Amino acid sequence: MSMHLDAATVICARWVAPVAPDATLIYENYAVVLDSRGKIADLCAIPEATEKYSDSAIEFVHLPNHLLIPGLVNAHTHTGMTLMRGKADDEPLLTWLHNTVWPIEGKFTHRERFCHDGALLAAAEMLISGTTAFADMYWNPIEAAEAVERAGIRALLGLICIGFPSHFAKSEQEYIENGIRIAETLKDKERITLAWAPHAPYTVSDSALKQLGQLSTDMQIPLHVHLHETEDECSASAKLETTNPACHRSEHAARPLSNFDRLGLVNSRLLAAHVVHTTDEEISLLANSGANVVHCPSSNMKLASGFCRVSDMIAAGVHVALGTDSAASNNSLDMFSEMRAAALLAKNVSRDPTTVPAATALKMATLNGARALGLSDELGSIELGKQGDLVAVELGTRVHTAPVFHPLSTLVYSATREDVREVWVGGKRLVSNGKLLHLDVAELLVSAEQWMSQMTKEMSSTT
Amino acid sequence: MSMHLDAATVICARWVAPVAPDATLIYENYAVVLDSRGKIADLCAIPEATEKYSDSAIEFVHLPNHLLIPGLVNAHTHTGMTLMRGKADDEPLLTWLHNTVWPIEGKFTHRERFCHDGALLAAAEMLISGTTAFADMYWNPIEAAEAVERAGIRALLGLICIGFPSHFAKSEQEYIENGIRIAETLKDKERITLAWAPHAPYTVSDSALKQLGQLSTDMQIPLHVHLHETEDECSASAKLETTNPACHRSEHAARPLSNFDRLGLVNSRLLAAHVVHTTDEEISLLANSGANVVHCPSSNMKLASGFCRVSDMIAAGVHVALGTDSAASNNSLDMFSEMRAAALLAKNVSRDPTTVPAATALKMATLNGARALGLSDELGSIELGKQGDLVAVELGTRVHTAPVFHPLSTLVYSATREDVREVWVGGKRLVSNGKLLHLDVAELLVSAEQWMSQMTKEMSSTT
Repeated sequence: MSMHLDAATVICARWVAPVAPDATLIYENYAVVLDSRGKIADLCAIPEATEKYSDSAIEFVHLPNHLLIPGLVNAHTHTGMTLMRGKADDEPLLTWLHNTVWPIEGKFTHRERFCHDGALLAAAEMLISGTTAFADMYWNPIEAAEAVERAGIRALLGLICIGFPSHFAKSEQEYIENGIRIAETLKDKERITLAWAPHAPYTVSDSALKQLGQLSTDMQIPLHVHLHETEDECSASAKLETTNPACHRSEHAARPLSNFDRLGLVNSRLLAAHVVHTTDEEISLLANSGANVVHCPSSNMKLASGFCRVSDMIAAGVHVALGTDSAASNNSLDMFSEMRAAALLAKNVSRDPTTVPAATALKMATLNGARALGLSDELGSIELGKQGDLVAVELGTRVHTAPVFHPLSTLVYSATREDVREVWVGGKRLVSNGKLLHLDVAELLVSAEQWMSQMTKEMSSTT
Repeated sequence: MSMHLDAATVICARWVAPVAPDATLIYENYAVVLDSRGKIADLCAIPEATEKYSDSAIEFVHLPNHLLIPGLVNAHTHTGMTLMRGKADDEPLLTWLHNTVWPIEGKFTHRERFCHDGALLAAAEMLISGTTAFADMYWNPIEAAEAVERAGIRALLGLICIGFPSHFAKSEQEYIENGIRIAETLKDKERITLAWAPHAPYTVSDSALKQLGQLSTDMQIPLHVHLHETEDECSASAKLETTNPACHRSEHAARPLSNFDRLGLVNSRLLAAHVVHTTDEEISLLANSGANVVHCPSSNMKLASGFCRVSDMIAAGVHVALGTDSAASNNSLDMFSEMRAAALLAKNVSRDPTTVPAATALKMATLNGARALGLSDELGSIELGKQGDLVAVELGTRVHTAPVFHPLSTLVYSATREDVREVWVGGKRLVSNGKLLHLDVAELLVSAEQWMSQMTKEMSSTT
């Protein structure tokens, strides 16, 4: 039967980590076969693949020292902010927002190409470091979509809603109307899906949240939101301290997650970023509802937000994915760094060195991410019928990854993005031998430098 | 006067971060001039250097997109363990030690070339990632010294003492006698200095510690020790729970640091690794005595040891350096990773995003490390008369480091070891364009794989 398979590409690797059905699984000397639509059509030992496909396949790719993994999924970022990378660091959150982020966003995000150029720089950084899909939340999804199409990456783009006026909309209602229009424009784009993206409980009203929850249900798309990022957000909302800028905009005195539950938003379509502060009851609620938590370890540390209870969440059955947050608060979009940080941090927070082992970190960065994006039928593991979103990481051939006792351990604890050699999205090779094939890096760097000059010039009076 | 300077190499860089006298200092378009002995002879603007040295200098090196920093100092590692990288992860400390580390050490560390090959692999990994000096503590300093000489790196090698017999010595006294003999053998080696290295309070007796403290004073060399790594070590020692393997071997019920103070060991020659658990009084003692603490953020997280109070220590005036610990517990020897982890973690532990800014992290990884090694007159900053131990990191030319608003921020938060392009030790270039010039990587990889096979074969019955 599979003899007549329309095999386009046969990727033969020293090791394959399919992530599903078991995150610890490693196949040695295995082949992943992609069909002409770029989907995974077979998974078998190399000799079998050679016999079955040597006549029909268009391309055999040999990866003798590589571990093949599903493409990494960055489940929370703001790609437009990539142009602000390193503009202001080591500052308190509110100083940073008031003196840097918001003034720059007010002046720049509506200018033509700013969000596009930020998203394209971000897409390049993500692809070359093994990330093949991301969940974005930023001002101009139309420009982000152009960048996604050009880069060949996948994205869940957020249709933003925020309770203050900007160049994009004057009211929550106008944001929502814009979102509906944008959704219509982007609905048939390849590799692009959409989410409703109310910024946070402290910037969006209950009525808008409820409406977005309904739209998320009607359209069957995720609701992407910042939630329980700081202690202040939880305690101010619980006490309804409306003068505190971190207090949610509800009239109900309640912690935001509990208010979200009341509004009917806590379900498997919820993509809740950060979720640093949680009670046991809140962890149970997240687990039972099937909600997705996106842990952002580097960003949480850098902004001093606190320590997420990742180990307790996983034990309770919460779906925990990983995100970098933006390059302005991280300051990189490197999912290898987040896998390692997530594994190491969880051990120390729980004082249990056995928690979040390497295989779990990889699953968080792949299959759990795909689920958070609402795409786990298509992405996140190397299984028949899924998209050929694949990453080959070379192990054991450079001093920092030698020797290789256990490929997953080497992947998570020793390898870094520099070890990514080949990346495919939907069966199309976008990175080869560590180089981007379809993007002109020099052009990206020129645009980054031009925007930096503009920002430095125009913001010098305010910073 | 300097017109007649014997200039050998003039390194012209876009940015120079000298670290001293001020860690935040950045010179733009500056030149570092090395004399024929490899020492820093001048530091001036590029046009001035061109005028002064274009006739006499042997070599001009142009680094138009690079930040030149002092070589990074890894102030706590065990290079011989590099061959065990990834052998056993995600395990409790005692399981890991009993089932993996100690059985392997018992079987392998006395075999010819094991410690040499581990140290050479480690030296290669460190050099290529910008580390030019390290403090080592392992079984066979003679073999480590051979590796150091061959690699061209610098090392403070520990003369180990531990209260149990091994292939190297039967008693603490024999370890000390061996140490004296080894010190004699290695005393004239270039780029090698020595430290006394009692393993830890829970493995070395008070009488041996006191003797080593005296030897450290007499010889004016550091005393390198693991201290206050776990909560258990502190509390068991305070209560003198002698059945607890983490309890110190003193007869005094006291926390180990306090016992060290009683033994006269807390002074500026103390190189105390980890120091995770501390009271306010202990931090004052460390600050007032001038002792050196080596923070190992990745290792502490991976072994779930707890969170070091780095921010409090720095505020109190403690000299805090950085270390990777071994590749068996990290699992890399990457000081870029430790700088970033130290800065991020300190912010979250102290809930203060302004603490350990980028410049402080760099100082911890350079000048403070040099001080911990007892070599701050020679290393750790770009100052006249110091050794030409220099690292050029390329910024802004790859997507993950663009744009560059502030070079130190880009260095610590966005760059990684993959951005290291050029490395000099004592004025000799050891890495160029990201490649090791004098070490054969293929040979190192073959030896790592051979030792891995041996370990896998011989240890299969016990693990």
